[in-house]
Order: sequence, then C-alpha cells, then structure tokens
Amino acid sequence: MFYLVGIGLKPEHLTLEAQNILKECSEIYLERYTSQYSEGSFEFLEALLGRKVILTDRHEVENEFGKKLQKAKSGNVALLVFGNALTATTHIQLLLDCRKFKVPFSFIPGISLTNFIALSGLQEYKFGRSVTIVQPEANYSPDSFYDFIKENQKLGLHSLCFLDIKQEKKKLLSIKEALGILEVIEGKRKDSLLKKSVLVGIAGAGSSKMQIKAGSVNDLKRFSFNSFPQALIICGSLSEKEREALNALSV
Amino acid sequence: MFYLVGIGLKPEHLTLEAQNILKECSEIYLERYTSQYSEGSFEFLEALLGRKVILTDRHEVENEFGKKLQKAKSGNVALLVFGNALTATTHIQLLLDCRKFKVPFSFIPGISLTNFIALSGLQEYKFGRSVTIVQPEANYSPDSFYDFIKENQKLGLHSLCFLDIKQEKKKLLSIKEALGILEVIEGKRKDSLLKKSVLVGIAGAGSSKMQIKAGSVNDLKRFSFNSFPQALIICGSLSEKEREALNALSV
Repeated sequence: MFYLVGIGLKPEHLTLEAQNILKECSEIYLERYTSQYSEGSFEFLEALLGRKVILTDRHEVENEFGKKLQKAKSGNVALLVFGNALTATTHIQLLLDCRKFKVPFSFIPGISLTNFIALSGLQEYKFGRSVTIVQPEANYSPDSFYDFIKENQKLGLHSLCFLDIKQEKKKLLSIKEALGILEVIEGKRKDSLLKKSVLVGIAGAGSSKMQIKAGSVNDLKRFSFNSFPQALIICGSLSEKEREALNALSV
Repeated sequence: MFYLVGIGLKPEHLTLEAQNILKECSEIYLERYTSQYSEGSFEFLEALLGRKVILTDRHEVENEFGKKLQKAKSGNVALLVFGNALTATTHIQLLLDCRKFKVPFSFIPGISLTNFIALSGLQEYKFGRSVTIVQPEANYSPDSFYDFIKENQKLGLHSLCFLDIKQEKKKLLSIKEALGILEVIEGKRKDSLLKKSVLVGIAGAGSSKMQIKAGSVNDLKRFSFNSFPQALIICGSLSEKEREALNALSV
C-alpha cells in the first residue's frame, strides 16, 4: 500500500491513524519543499516514530517516485507531507499514477493552516477562494491572485493568502514581503484594496509562538512576526460579531 | 486552562497533542449536536483516552457553560467537538467568554471534512465559499445558500455544501435529501444549475466505508451512499486535469 500522509504543522499533530500506519511501513519518505514545521524538528519526528525517515526533494517526487510506488505493490511505502496532503498538484498526480499502475493507495489527512483560520474570529463560511502570493521573478510575475482577492471582496468574502516559497527555494515568504508584493501590484493598477481592508497575519500556526495580528497594512508592517510558516488574510466585509471576535482573539 | 479540542471524524483522528492534553484534564465534555463520527464510537473514544467523557447538549453549551469555564481558571477543562472546532458560532462565543472572564484557553485543531475535499481530484484553490444546506421548516425555509452556489459558479468555482442536521435534531441530512431540497428551490426559480453541473457526493469521510461519487443529479440520486456524515460538492468549471483526477479517484 502507498500511504500519502499529512503530518500537520508540528510533530504533535500526528494522528493515531498516521502513527499506526507508519509503524507498518518499510520505507518512509518526507518531502519538504512545499512547507516546514512551525515547531519541532525532523529529528524529533524520527524519534517520535522510532523510525528512519528519508528526505526527498521536488525533483524526485515529481520525476522518480515511480520506483517507490512499484514497491508499494508488495510492501508499505509512505510519503509524508507537511500540513494536509493533496494541496499541491504533484501529490494528486502520485495518486493518479497509483491508479494507472494498479498500486493500492490510502490518503491520511493532516492538520493544515486552514484548520486555524477561524481562530482569528473570522467566520469560516465567509472565506472565498484561497490564493497563493508568489514572489515575482525576472521573467515571471503573476498577479492573478490579486484579481481573485478583488473578486472575493466584491462578494464581501475574506481571502486566505498562502505565502509561497521564495524563488531560491530556501526561504518561506514572509507576511511583510507578501505585503510588499501586493503593494507593487496595487501601485501599478492604481488600486487601493489593501489600504481599505482589515488584514490579519497568522504566523507559526499551531506552535507555542503562534501569532494572530489584525490591523491595517501599516500595523502589520510594523508588527514583528517571528515564526513560520506565515499566512495573510485580507478581510472582506466584517459582521459586528466578527469585529468583536477579531478584537478579542487577535493581538 | 480551557481546551477547545477538535477530535476529527473517528477516534483514530486524535492527534498526539489532543491525547497529551486530555490526560491532564479533570473534566472532559463532548458536544455532539453538530456532527457525529464517520466510524468508531463514543465508548471507543473513552477507552482510548482511558477517561470518562461527559456528554453535553446544545442548550448547555450555549447557555450554561459559564460554570465550567470558571472551573478552568484553576483546573483543566476540555470541550471535545467532532471535526475541527470553531466552525460553529457557539464555539467562538466560548472563547470570547473566556477572554471576558479572564479564563486562559487553548485551541486544539482536528481533522475535518475540508481536509478530504481534494481527495475527489478537485483542486482546493478552486473552491469558493462553503455553504450549509438547511432542511426547510414550516416557518423557515432559507435559500440564500443557493445564491452563494450561483455566485461561486459565475466565478467558475466549486461549492462545498455541508449538510445540516434535520430539524428533529436526530438525523444528519443525506445527500439525496439535500438534492431534493436544491431541486425544490431550483423549480421555484426556474433555474437549471443542478442539471448543468457535475456533482460530487462524499460520504463517511475518513472511514473505511468512505465513498466519493461524481456524476449528474440522477447519478447521485441512484447511488447508494451508506455512511455518514455526508457532503455535496457542486462543481464549477473543471480543468482537464481535474476531470482526469475526478474520473480516476471517484467511483
């Protein structure tokens, strides 16, 4: 069996289900190019499982995982992913490959950032589509995420913005950097969405250093977010109850 | 400390964090009016924790939980909620009460239905706002959820529909019943959103009986969904990759 396992945002987010399954696996891989822990370490995860965990990279998962999937025909092989799995297209492709090559598979869900957004006091059903804010590169500066945020706002909905890994692939994008990227787009378009909106920054979800800060662009720029991963919410219209909860639950 | 703990959709969804915390609690309550397990039982949960769990109802959580929160000033008290917590307004209110009465609290996330939607093959970032399909009552038949689904569709987005508990409060709404409710609204409005859309039914998320079925209204009506909780996705526009994944991953 091939197990695609979401491991959450810290080692303690492991579910009983994941622990039980990993005990039965002959090979356990961890991909860490899409995110990282908010607290705890790879070494602690290994100690917790009492098992060796093999690190794998994007290239291997996207191009060379077929051999591992073949092994899952006779044995148990697991791929661990931070947060919940299947958000990245690559991971869906692995399941499609399993179907194609008749490899049995099982999806094991994990705690993700989306499980924390209501802790801000914002109502979950008032979130529109999520977007990812991408760091512009020399020949590639997408800004479709800005259009999606605008569409959400027209409907009065909040936008959860995931923050991408920077192009060098070594650093997660920060809230401050994401605000800078949005301001550049906004400047080009002569728009004022950011200035008019209440924003919420979430840093280190699930860790003891978790921070939820609500305020204006300048409030968030001045605030010291000092843990990762980070995410940004751009609020749509706020009900009275949401305002009350946002004030009470964020710093 | 007051712990608001999401316990997921089956006992094995308990995280290490939740298990460790519950060991230190003098009183553990479980509210079960918003959902239920897809697999496993209350008794199994108690055995797993090795602790007594006290059942509580909506009235108590909404009106009389203040005394329990006061106890959390000196001891550790936990309220367990199926899935993730904080989706229901009542649970946010408990945290606001904690702030007001200076009771320290901690939010412990749990696996919820939203952690499973991408297993259908649909891309997570193509979901618009979520809605809850409500069973109409004699003097109360809301249909705003239909408007929200239409808005999502205009943007090409998928709609995740949670299915409410029926008015008698004893039975979770089924996919078939939800389709019936949507058809009545559609008939009144002379609309044809359902007929034109690809639909996905998800039953018993996380359990060994989990079913994901994609198709037309009639396909879903004919299909035997035999586990709970159930949910319905009304697809917006589908990319070629999504069609391929939907075909491969659903029955």
